[in-house]
Amino acid sequence: MWRELRPIGRHPESGGYRRFAWTGADAECRDWFEAQASARGLTYEVDRNGNQWAWLGDPVEGDAVVTGSHLDSVPDGGAFDGPLGVVSSFAALDELRARGARLDKPVGVVNFGDEEGARFGLACVGSRLSAGRLTVEEAWRLTDGDGVTLPQAMEAAGYDPEGIGADPERLARIGAFVELHVEQGRALGLSGDAVGIASAIWPHGRWRFDFRGEANHAGTTRLVDRRDPMLSYAETVLAARREARLAGAVATFGKISVEPNGVNAVPSLVRGWLDSRAEDQETLDVVVAAIEEAARDHARAGGVELDVVRESFTPVVEFEHALRDEIARILGREADLKVPVLGTGAGHDAGILSGRVPTAMLFVRNPTGVSHSPAEHAAEDDCLAGVTALADVLEGLARR
Amino acid sequence: MWRELRPIGRHPESGGYRRFAWTGADAECRDWFEAQASARGLTYEVDRNGNQWAWLGDPVEGDAVVTGSHLDSVPDGGAFDGPLGVVSSFAALDELRARGARLDKPVGVVNFGDEEGARFGLACVGSRLSAGRLTVEEAWRLTDGDGVTLPQAMEAAGYDPEGIGADPERLARIGAFVELHVEQGRALGLSGDAVGIASAIWPHGRWRFDFRGEANHAGTTRLVDRRDPMLSYAETVLAARREARLAGAVATFGKISVEPNGVNAVPSLVRGWLDSRAEDQETLDVVVAAIEEAARDHARAGGVELDVVRESFTPVVEFEHALRDEIARILGREADLKVPVLGTGAGHDAGILSGRVPTAMLFVRNPTGVSHSPAEHAAEDDCLAGVTALADVLEGLARR
Repeated sequence: MWRELRPIGRHPESGGYRRFAWTGADAECRDWFEAQASARGLTYEVDRNGNQWAWLGDPVEGDAVVTGSHLDSVPDGGAFDGPLGVVSSFAALDELRARGARLDKPVGVVNFGDEEGARFGLACVGSRLSAGRLTVEEAWRLTDGDGVTLPQAMEAAGYDPEGIGADPERLARIGAFVELHVEQGRALGLSGDAVGIASAIWPHGRWRFDFRGEANHAGTTRLVDRRDPMLSYAETVLAARREARLAGAVATFGKISVEPNGVNAVPSLVRGWLDSRAEDQETLDVVVAAIEEAARDHARAGGVELDVVRESFTPVVEFEHALRDEIARILGREADLKVPVLGTGAGHDAGILSGRVPTAMLFVRNPTGVSHSPAEHAAEDDCLAGVTALADVLEGLARR
Repeated sequence: MWRELRPIGRHPESGGYRRFAWTGADAECRDWFEAQASARGLTYEVDRNGNQWAWLGDPVEGDAVVTGSHLDSVPDGGAFDGPLGVVSSFAALDELRARGARLDKPVGVVNFGDEEGARFGLACVGSRLSAGRLTVEEAWRLTDGDGVTLPQAMEAAGYDPEGIGADPERLARIGAFVELHVEQGRALGLSGDAVGIASAIWPHGRWRFDFRGEANHAGTTRLVDRRDPMLSYAETVLAARREARLAGAVATFGKISVEPNGVNAVPSLVRGWLDSRAEDQETLDVVVAAIEEAARDHARAGGVELDVVRESFTPVVEFEHALRDEIARILGREADLKVPVLGTGAGHDAGILSGRVPTAMLFVRNPTGVSHSPAEHAAEDDCLAGVTALADVLEGLARR
């Protein structure tokens, strides 16, 4: 399975993946999913939001056990973030068949569309729509960097955007959703476990900082006559790191857009995006407020105007304790629930579905913790341990 | 003349101009130039490097007096930087005809191609090629942000790139070149003069700073595990301002490129361009060395690799003193040569030609000093004073 998936959307220079929603690379990934479903004789369907499903048994029975993840990527992302969960889902079904496992409930594999939000700026669009956590009006307004709207992109990819929206009937089929994912930190690397269970997803959000100054000639404008927004931006980048470190949180400026972005022009606009996450809501509020205050102070001192817009926010997600404990029992980990049950700073479709459907996550060890990078890696033995753990969990949960 | 030129390449939202070399907006500007030449019965020609010339009299006679400037713009540039010099050149010819002025020498108007370097990253490509200050090999390697090379762009615009290169025969026709330009600082605004004479162009250069760290997930990577190049970049931006202020120079980071430039990804690469200029070479060397040292210190501390590449450099240009004094005499300013003779931090085609041809520059007052911005402005009275001064200079220089 890996061999066919590996070349899709891979950039020849960076070695990273560029599988953005509703692009050609995305379509190839989706064709791959359909082919995997077909090769196993699974019932294949695409829901109104473009999420792909493959079913063993009849999902209309309800109380289904569903696993899966996503196949899209961040810009120059790694091979594992997303695809490991989908590949492991099919591999776990293969293992269950080889075992001759008894499955009393329908079992499904899902590929949620546009999880990373690399193209339209909002993560988990497929699962958000289905869970009713993104309104149809908001979705229709999503626009990529080239001015193409989400419905236009869906239509160009051969999907009817008219039907998008909440899909409670389909979610009602699901008794439990378990997403397997490569870990995006080093907790398992440090604890020495190949596979772990998630306890919670940290609250997190994205804020856009627009620093507006005055475009000017970089050669002839005296420093004292400048209103240079790049300086306020730079001060804010450093303040974000300081505040996050003080609070034990994370804060990152990883995306920037500059106008006019000319070598010999003082910028008129520097737009920077802050991503910040913390263990609890209160800490996150304190960190972001402190960063914003520092930004305002520096902007004011430099004659620069500042607008801060919260572009997205996801509160803390505590995965359902009953399901989490049941999975720990299946995996024989009752004795030591604290390790490797771990929190995560990353958002996932499982976090979006949580609250609508009992949801859990399994993590596979990532020795370096590197993610969202071509260097993202998981060892083959750990991936196989993940498949076995997932098969165990599916088998356990699919028993009546 | 202004009325026809004004709408070309103007961006409807920013109000700024986007007239980049060999684009549609550039072609419209070039058509305008040809129409102006034709309307005045001037001899029109395009040289091997795509520079446009309009001649009153036969330039082959030699010892010609040439004026002109450029029509292209920086991204979202103002209406005056470049076009004021070309429009004033035609207006000065009109004034000379109305006066019935005696012109013993041929008089030419030139529009140099690609002065701003907004598309291919190198300023003054047209004059550099003609003056032999850019080799044909280097020019063929110039590439825009979309991967289009300069020869491809010229060809697409209907020009034959095969013939580009040094053009000593054409330059040998010129006895004196005088470029009129809107001032890009506030020296005339502060001195109270409508028109000034340039003394020198500050040495200046562009340096590319490549900060390479490690792409990583912005939510799950602990701060201590990060190698975030955005932090080193931010420290360097602030160091540049500090060092320039200490030295009385200017230093600007106005252009940036980030990979992967995702909201939830620690960047793998932050590429920032430094533009720096100072009154003399020694000061500039000290400033840039200090900025580079600060960048290296911060990069090292953050586990970030740094490459610094000097992308272009122009030494100090002292305009020819004899021509400068002659112009001051014509304008009746012998008594007080120091004001308004002024240095400038901006590069110009006149600076490129200097050393090949006796060259001088006239500046028209810019009350705010704002340039490379839609807010760039010169008062109508000052522009008319510029035309009259230029007519006086052309008449004086064209006498035998």
